Amino acid sequence: MKPNVAIMGATGAVGVELMELLEERNFPLNSLKLLASARSAGKKMPFRGQELTVEELTHDSFKGIDLVLASAGGSISKEFAPSAVKAGAVVVDNTSYFRMKEGVPLVVPEVNPEAIKTHKGIIANPNCSTIIMVLPLFPLHKAFGIKRVVVSTYQAASGAGAQAMKELHEETEAVLKGQPYQNTVIKQPYAFNLFPHNSGMTDNGYVEEELKMVKETQKIFNEPNFKVTATCVRVPVLRAHSESINIEFERPYDIEKAYEILKNAPGVHVYEDRPANRWATPLVVSGKDPVYVGRLRRDLSCANGLEMWVVGDQIRKGAALNAIQIAELLEF
Amino acid sequence: MKPNVAIMGATGAVGVELMELLEERNFPLNSLKLLASARSAGKKMPFRGQELTVEELTHDSFKGIDLVLASAGGSISKEFAPSAVKAGAVVVDNTSYFRMKEGVPLVVPEVNPEAIKTHKGIIANPNCSTIIMVLPLFPLHKAFGIKRVVVSTYQAASGAGAQAMKELHEETEAVLKGQPYQNTVIKQPYAFNLFPHNSGMTDNGYVEEELKMVKETQKIFNEPNFKVTATCVRVPVLRAHSESINIEFERPYDIEKAYEILKNAPGVHVYEDRPANRWATPLVVSGKDPVYVGRLRRDLSCANGLEMWVVGDQIRKGAALNAIQIAELLEF
Repeated sequence: MKPNVAIMGATGAVGVELMELLEERNFPLNSLKLLASARSAGKKMPFRGQELTVEELTHDSFKGIDLVLASAGGSISKEFAPSAVKAGAVVVDNTSYFRMKEGVPLVVPEVNPEAIKTHKGIIANPNCSTIIMVLPLFPLHKAFGIKRVVVSTYQAASGAGAQAMKELHEETEAVLKGQPYQNTVIKQPYAFNLFPHNSGMTDNGYVEEELKMVKETQKIFNEPNFKVTATCVRVPVLRAHSESINIEFERPYDIEKAYEILKNAPGVHVYEDRPANRWATPLVVSGKDPVYVGRLRRDLSCANGLEMWVVGDQIRKGAALNAIQIAELLEF
Repeated sequence: MKPNVAIMGATGAVGVELMELLEERNFPLNSLKLLASARSAGKKMPFRGQELTVEELTHDSFKGIDLVLASAGGSISKEFAPSAVKAGAVVVDNTSYFRMKEGVPLVVPEVNPEAIKTHKGIIANPNCSTIIMVLPLFPLHKAFGIKRVVVSTYQAASGAGAQAMKELHEETEAVLKGQPYQNTVIKQPYAFNLFPHNSGMTDNGYVEEELKMVKETQKIFNEPNFKVTATCVRVPVLRAHSESINIEFERPYDIEKAYEILKNAPGVHVYEDRPANRWATPLVVSGKDPVYVGRLRRDLSCANGLEMWVVGDQIRKGAALNAIQIAELLEF
C-alpha cells in the first residue's frame, strides 16, 4: 500500500527539499498534502508536474494521512505531532522537540536503522551537524573504538532557515554598497562575519546546538558515555556545514585502513586531491547526498589521534534526505 | 638616539598597518623610508601629516638605516634582509623565511621578550594564527601546565594579503549579481564558501600554516615537545582570525581561575556577554590591538579539558603590531 503523505512546514527550506527528494527518489506515495501556517495557505507549489496548494495546518489536517514529514519548528511539532499520531499517521520529525524523549527513536539510517522498529508513532530526525558528524564517525568507531571527539563546526545560514539565507544575501549586498542593514533573523552582523552558534545558551556555557551534537550522538550510538565536545560556529556560507573533527581512538589505527573504511561506508564519499590541496567545500557539497570526508592525517599531539575534514549539505543529508531515508524504511 | 626606519613592502596590507601603528604609537624615529617593488615605486603615502614617496627596494636601500620592518614576502626577505643587516640595521621580519632558523629569535613580546637579546641582526615575527593562539595559551600554560592543544581556525582573507581581500569583495559582488568571476589570488571559489587553508601541502597531509602553529609555538615557548595539532581553514571574512581552541591540562583547573588569569594577561582582552550569547567576532575585533578571548567552558569529553574562543586582528596583533612591539623593545 502506498501511503498518503503530508509535509508540515512545506514552504520552509527543508520543506521544499523534502518535495524535491520525494520526486527525485520516486518515493511511492498515494497523495501528498502540503501543510503550513495560515500565512502560507493558498500558495501553489509544483510536485511531479502538478501544482499543489498549501493548506493551513490544523489538528484536523491528518485524516487519512499515513506519513507526516514534519519540519515547521519544535513548538509546531509539539502541538501537532500527537494529533497526527492519533489520526493513525507515523511522524518523521525534523525538529529537536522529540529527539531526546524516551521511547522516541532518533535515527540515522546508515547507523541505527534497527531503532526505527521501536517507534510509537514518532521517529526523530537528528540535528544536521550531528548527522553529518556521525556518518563518518560510526564506521571508524566500530573499527578502532573512539575514546574522545573534539569537533569545531563551520555552519551555513541554511541551518537557520530560508529566511536566514535570504538575509545573508541581502545584508552582504548592503555591506558591499556601504548601506546600513538591520538584521532581523540573525540578530547580529553576519555579512563577512562569523559568530558562535546562535542557539540558546545553557548553564554550562555550551549552546544548545553543541549539546545536541553530544547528546544526540550518544543516543544514536546507544552509548550514553560516548565522549564528544563541540564548538559550533555560524559562518557566512549559504548552505552546507563543514566540520573539523579530531578523534582520539582507544587503539592504534592505520590511516590507510581508515580511508578504506570510509570509502566503503554508506552515505560517505571520500573526496580529496591531496597534492593539489583541494578538499570538500560547502560549494562542492551543496545539493549532494553523501557526507564528504577527507584530509585524514595523524594527529600531531596524540599517538592514537586522527584529524578529519567533513562537509555535508545541511538541508539534504542534514535534514530532508535523512527524513526521507527513514520514511523509506517504514512499511505501510 | 632615534632610529632611521625602513619598511619593506610598504604598500601591502601589513605595510600600511605598520605605518598607521608607527603614527598611532608615536614610535620614536628619525626618518621613515618606504620600500616596495619597482611596480609601486613613486606611489605617495601619508605619514605624520607628510607625503612619503615609495622607493624601489634594492640592495643599496639600507645605507644609514637602523631598523627594517620587513613584510614583502619570504623570498624578498631571504634576498634583502642580509643586505640590511650588513648595512648595520636590525630587521624585524614578518615573513616565515627566518622564523625556524637557528639563531633567529621568534618573538611575541608578551611571551618571550628575553629572546630578543640573542638576535644577530634578524628577529622573526611569528605567523598570525600562532601569535593569536599563544597569547592566551601562555599564561594558562604557566598556571596549569598544558598537555595538549587541538585548534581549528577560521582565517580571514587578510592573511592572504590586500589583493585577496579585494578579490573576496569583487567575487562576492559578482556572485550576488549572478555574474561569473575568475579568481586569481585565491585560486578557488571563495565568496560564500570556505576551504582548508591554501598554504603549501606537506608530506604528512598538514598544510604549512598548520605546521607553523605547531612548530612556532614550540619555539616561542622554548619547548620542542609542546603538543599542538591544528586544522586551518580560510573563511569568507575580510579581516581578523578566529580560533576554536581545546586545551587539555596536565592538572585539574578551575574555570574562574582561568578567567582571572586571562583578565590579567598582557595583550589579552576577555570579552563576552554570556547570557546574551555574544562573544568576540571578526567585526568586533577588527582594528583592535588585544586578542579577544571568551567562551571558557569545561570540556565535555575530558576532565582537565577547556574549550575557549579566541579572535585577533590578523593584520594588527597577528602581524604589524607584534612587529612594532618587538621594535619598541630594541635599543638604538
